[in-house]
This record gives sequence, structure tokens and C-alpha cells, in this order.
Amino acid sequence: MDSSRLVQPAETKLLLVVMDGLGGYADAGHGTELEEAVTPNLDQLAADGLCGLVEPVGPGITPGSGPGHLGLFGYDPEQFELGRGALSAAGLDFELKPGDVAARGNLCTLAPDGTIADRRAGRIPDAEARAIVDRLQEGIQVEGAEVFFRHECEHRLLLVLRGDGLDPHVAETDPQQTGVPPRAPEALEPRAERTAELLAQVGSQVRTVLAGEPQANFLLLRGYDTHRELPSYVDRYGLHAAAVAIYPMYRGIARLVGMEVLGAPADLDEQLTILRDAWAGYDYFFLHHKYPDSAGEDGDRARKIAAIEQLDAVVPALRELDPDVIAVSGDHSTPSQMAAHSWHPVPTLLWSERCGRDEVQHFGERWCLHGGLGIRPTKDLMPIMLANAGRLQKYGA
Amino acid sequence: MDSSRLVQPAETKLLLVVMDGLGGYADAGHGTELEEAVTPNLDQLAADGLCGLVEPVGPGITPGSGPGHLGLFGYDPEQFELGRGALSAAGLDFELKPGDVAARGNLCTLAPDGTIADRRAGRIPDAEARAIVDRLQEGIQVEGAEVFFRHECEHRLLLVLRGDGLDPHVAETDPQQTGVPPRAPEALEPRAERTAELLAQVGSQVRTVLAGEPQANFLLLRGYDTHRELPSYVDRYGLHAAAVAIYPMYRGIARLVGMEVLGAPADLDEQLTILRDAWAGYDYFFLHHKYPDSAGEDGDRARKIAAIEQLDAVVPALRELDPDVIAVSGDHSTPSQMAAHSWHPVPTLLWSERCGRDEVQHFGERWCLHGGLGIRPTKDLMPIMLANAGRLQKYGA
Repeated sequence: MDSSRLVQPAETKLLLVVMDGLGGYADAGHGTELEEAVTPNLDQLAADGLCGLVEPVGPGITPGSGPGHLGLFGYDPEQFELGRGALSAAGLDFELKPGDVAARGNLCTLAPDGTIADRRAGRIPDAEARAIVDRLQEGIQVEGAEVFFRHECEHRLLLVLRGDGLDPHVAETDPQQTGVPPRAPEALEPRAERTAELLAQVGSQVRTVLAGEPQANFLLLRGYDTHRELPSYVDRYGLHAAAVAIYPMYRGIARLVGMEVLGAPADLDEQLTILRDAWAGYDYFFLHHKYPDSAGEDGDRARKIAAIEQLDAVVPALRELDPDVIAVSGDHSTPSQMAAHSWHPVPTLLWSERCGRDEVQHFGERWCLHGGLGIRPTKDLMPIMLANAGRLQKYGA
Repeated sequence: MDSSRLVQPAETKLLLVVMDGLGGYADAGHGTELEEAVTPNLDQLAADGLCGLVEPVGPGITPGSGPGHLGLFGYDPEQFELGRGALSAAGLDFELKPGDVAARGNLCTLAPDGTIADRRAGRIPDAEARAIVDRLQEGIQVEGAEVFFRHECEHRLLLVLRGDGLDPHVAETDPQQTGVPPRAPEALEPRAERTAELLAQVGSQVRTVLAGEPQANFLLLRGYDTHRELPSYVDRYGLHAAAVAIYPMYRGIARLVGMEVLGAPADLDEQLTILRDAWAGYDYFFLHHKYPDSAGEDGDRARKIAAIEQLDAVVPALRELDPDVIAVSGDHSTPSQMAAHSWHPVPTLLWSERCGRDEVQHFGERWCLHGGLGIRPTKDLMPIMLANAGRLQKYGA
């Protein structure tokens, strides 16, 4: 049932706290990071509300950050796919507009005979690559369209074409092997002919601009994508939503669903200040806390625990804002044993005046199993939040 | 998987006890009504069987009685929608037949210039409105179709046209505002032209019949609907089903799925007598107990608890009938704190010789969380009942 068709207005405020990569798994030696973290404030919320576990995409499926967050925002990640170009742009905080065509680019090394000698230009260091990308941005112009180059990391960059009549159905120029020349960006469908022509011009100018470079003397393109319009929070939920996130990727994803992205916080304290200052102006707030994931990805159990405790410490300040509904969850699990994203269900808590209570007294995976939210798809959290906020009408008479 | 395609015959009897609005939520001060009710007989069933929680339409969604019951009957409430006209008719115990067109009507006040002065005719009292509706029934005839008027409450009534070639795609005559004249009942599709013509005749006669009325001098129509054929219990499940319900709405919904509606009981004792007398004649019984919902809607916690205990007291008599499968659930939750239907999952128990046991010893929301049924969509209860009744074949080799 698509609950968004039941949305009704209300004067309530919802807060979603995302602890990136929150979930983990217990083994013979340890509880999960969340279980072992000392989290008196989250435990109090758990005791006063409901706990459970959520699966972002499906059982056994390890989500990327895109689908993980879409699920938390109530968008079925299977129905609403974020293309690579869109995520790349989101990750760079680059705002794609309708009609833009985005591609991922690799700086590469061409041999004197024109074949590809290294698809990654020797994994050229960031500073050097950034300078090269700046030269591309300065040196390249095409007729009737804007071209944007943005450095990601090492040899990777984002290329965006902006103009009328663009279409992403163009052949990738990266042949995914060395010893052969780059492919031509041929149109795969008639409507992409203009885009193919523009990309051919870009390619030819790249050769000129980078002619003297010893390593990064050309650019391979793949993963063409266009801006995909997601229904916005306002249209879908009637919510004026704001995001308070540090990292570009999460700011970008929030922007894709029409959230206002607030400030330029550098740490959790600054996020809190921004949230407090903006509290009166929005109905829904997405607070993103990155560090449980970063630590988990590094396989650093102690640091992941500390990152969770760091969030716990600001819970009283969050409750002082007096949200009507609070949900705390994660976009996926990042067990420190695996040093990677994983499929393990993500511990989740929900608090409101009317959510009811279960018997869970502590926030942690194995306690959440006994909680009133059960184990459910992540996308179901949003309608439950909306219901608790008095924002869903009755269905049927 | 549509379990109805696996149905096989058996000599077993199933009993569904619906405690309307059963579910609630615990808060700082109280457990739920069911948790606090003293229910030794339901507890014994819970101890001998399985408990769980069901969500009638979807997570966060507050169901009306129509979808709530359809779910309990094993009909996906998203796939099988009950229209307003059909529910209105059901609520009046008016049996819509295939081809009928039903509409909701408001008695209204027209000013001398023909514009609507009051869309609700001053919320005219029941007795007065009923007399007016009787006059409409007596005074209005159209060529080639029957017209039925039934009073609902205050200014509201049900209008049904019965005849050949009718279609509900007609413009609503209620403009939903005052100071403008009623709209004409124009056909929205060619196949509705005859219906539009008949409704225009009805309108013109209503003006004549009610000409002298100070308040209720016309009728506005909306929510046209036709009889929607739902697959019957016999066709879908091979079950000869009977309903024992006091209130018209639930009798009507049961009739829509082909149940025989038995007797005219006034209280639970009479329901029990009817059930006992009819026990040999049917395979499936739907026993509807309204009062937990009525009390919940009134915000009367003590009365809701008493209504639950009242049902508990008849459980031994129900078990004496020796049903093979007993399910006890609700069509939705009605927490007395909210004095309204809500989205909270509904506590449910299942008993049969073969259902297994969990560790739940008491029937109540928080204990049900640990039960063998888990948290699941309401519509899944019916296939589980059928399986326990030996009425589903194996799927696949």
C-alpha cells in the first residue's frame, strides 16, 4: 500500500537520525558495536518507545548508501534507482538539473600508438589529478552546451554536459581493457546523436589540453546517466524537510528528494547548532552521522563504538528540540569484523507519544529482535513515522 | 502466493472471533487494554496455541472497518476495495445486487434563487429526516428502474437505482460548496447516459415532493458506486460461511463475501445461541464483537477492558462447540488514548490441534511480540487458518 496517497497535513515535527553503517553482528568474542557502546540516552528512548530491525533493500542484500538512504526516506529502493552519474554528482555535492547528462570519467594513459596503456593513469595522486581536472575545466568548451569537470579522487572524475536535447544513450568510451584504443562515443539511439557529437568534441579537446602529460593524457567515460527526478518530500509527504549532513554524498541524496540542505557543518556540535537554528522552519529533519560507518569500514571496532557513543551524547539536546517523532536507524550495517557494508539488519528505534512501548530497555541488535517494530523493510519506517506524526488519514471507511 | 488456488475440501470447522478495535498501545501509565483485561480463557487459548500481531492494510496505515475485515477474511484490502456506496449499503444492511448503482445523498436547503444555502439541511434530526426519506420513497418513481431511499443518520441517506444498463460514471450533483446551484447529474461516459437521465428525473421529482419543506427541500448526490462482486468464500475457499454479528455494517461486509448472515442478535448471549444452533450447518463462522471498538472510540478505557472481558467469558462456550481452528483478532486497533482507529498492529491468537505452541502464556500486545505468528499482514491469517484446518494442499512436488 502506497501510504503517500493518504498523507494529510499536521503541525508535527519528525526527526530522523541516521547513524551511517550502524548495524553489526555479534560473534563468539563480542557483542555488536552498538550492544557494547554505552548509550544511556538511546537506551532511554528505546525504553520509552519501540525497537526493531530494518532491512534496507532485501534479505541478504548489502546496500550502498544511495538505496540505504532512499529506504529510510520511504522510497522503495527497487522502484527508485539512483543512477551512477546521479550518485556521483550527489557525492560531489554537484546539483544535477533536469536534462543534464553525467558520466564517470577515468584519467588514463594512452601509448604513442593511441592504445590504452593504463586505464587509471597510474592511480595518479589527488593533488595532481585535481590540477589536471582544473585544466580540463578551463580549456574545454563546446558549442551550445556547458561542460563541467569535477575531480572525485585519484584518477576519477565527474563529467556533466548541460544543454538542450541531451540524452545519455551514448556508447561508453572506456573499453574496460588495455592495448586497444578508446571507443568512439557513438549514439546508441537517434535521440542521443547531439550528445554523442558533443562528447566527441570534448574527447578531441581533451587530447589537445592533456597532450603534454606523461600519465594522464586522456579520459575514458562510462556510466552515463541523466538527472532522475524523484518525487520530492513536499509532493510525496507534504513535508518541508531539511538535511543536516557533513559529507557531500548524503547532502546530495537529501537534495535529490527535495530536502533543503542546511549549512556547512564540520562536526556534530555544528550540526546540532544548525538543527537548533532551523528547527522552527521545517517539518522534518534528517541528521546524518557518518562516523560509525567510517570506523566500521576501517575495521576499527573501538572507534565505531566511540562514534556511536558520540551520537548518544547529543540525544538529550535533540529531545530538547521537542520533536513529535524520533527515529534512529542506519542506512546499512558496517560490521567492523568485515570492514565493509553488509546485509545484516539494522537496529532501529522509534519514539513518539503514541508509538506504544515494548519491553526493550537497551538499544542493540539482539534486544531489538524482541521489539515492537519487528524486522521489516527499511522503507516501512517512514509510513510508521508519518502515522505517529498524525500525518496519515484512515484508509477506507 | 495466492493460497486460494491450493484449497482442498475437508470436514473441519473454523471460527474467527473479531474483537472490533481490539488493539491498543502501552504508555508510561498503563499497559494496553487487552494486557490489563483479566482474560483467563483467552490466555488459555494463547498458552495452548500461537500468538502474534497483524497489520490490516500496511505499516502505519489506519484502516477503516471495510479493509480491516476484508484482510481478516483473507482478501488483500488493496486488491479488493470496497467503494463508499457499497459500504454505505453494507452499513444499512441494504443488499446491493449486481448492476445496482448506489450513491450517498445529503438532504440540503436550497435558497429561493435555487442556490444551496445549507449542504446539510441544518443537520436535520433523525426522526424528521427519516420521515422525509419515507416520503421520497413513496413519492418517487422512474421509468424502467427501481429507486430505493434509505435513511442513514441526520441529513445522510443512501440512494440506490436498480435496473438494466445502469452505470455509476455520473457527475456528482453536490458541488461541495454553498451559494451555487446543485450540479446536473451528467453522464461522464456514454454508457452512463441512461443512469444520468434517471437521476435527473429523480432530482426533478425530489424538488416536487420536498417543495414545502423549510429546510430539507432538495438532495445532493455523491460517491456513486456500483455493486462490486467479491469472490465468495465458497468459490475462494470452498467454505460455507456464516456470520453472527449485531451491527449492520459487519453483517453487510460478511454478505459481500458470500457469508450467510444469521439471525438478528441483540447481545453476545444471543450471538452464542445463534452460533450453537447453526453450528452443524456451516464450515466457517465469523463472530463479531463490536464493543471494544465502541468503548475505544469513546476513549473509555475501563469499558474497553470490560468489553474484552465480556468476550473472554464466552470462550469456554465457543470451545465447547469443538471448532478445529479458532482465531481471535481485530479488524484494527482503537486505543482508548486516541479515541479513534489507529495503525497499531493488532494482537492475534490462533489455536488448533496442530498449530504448535510458543512461549506466550497471556494474550496481549507485548506478549504477542514473542509469539509464533510474528508480525504479519492481516490477510495472511486466513491461509494459516486454512492450513490448520487441513484445507490447503501441498504446493509443488
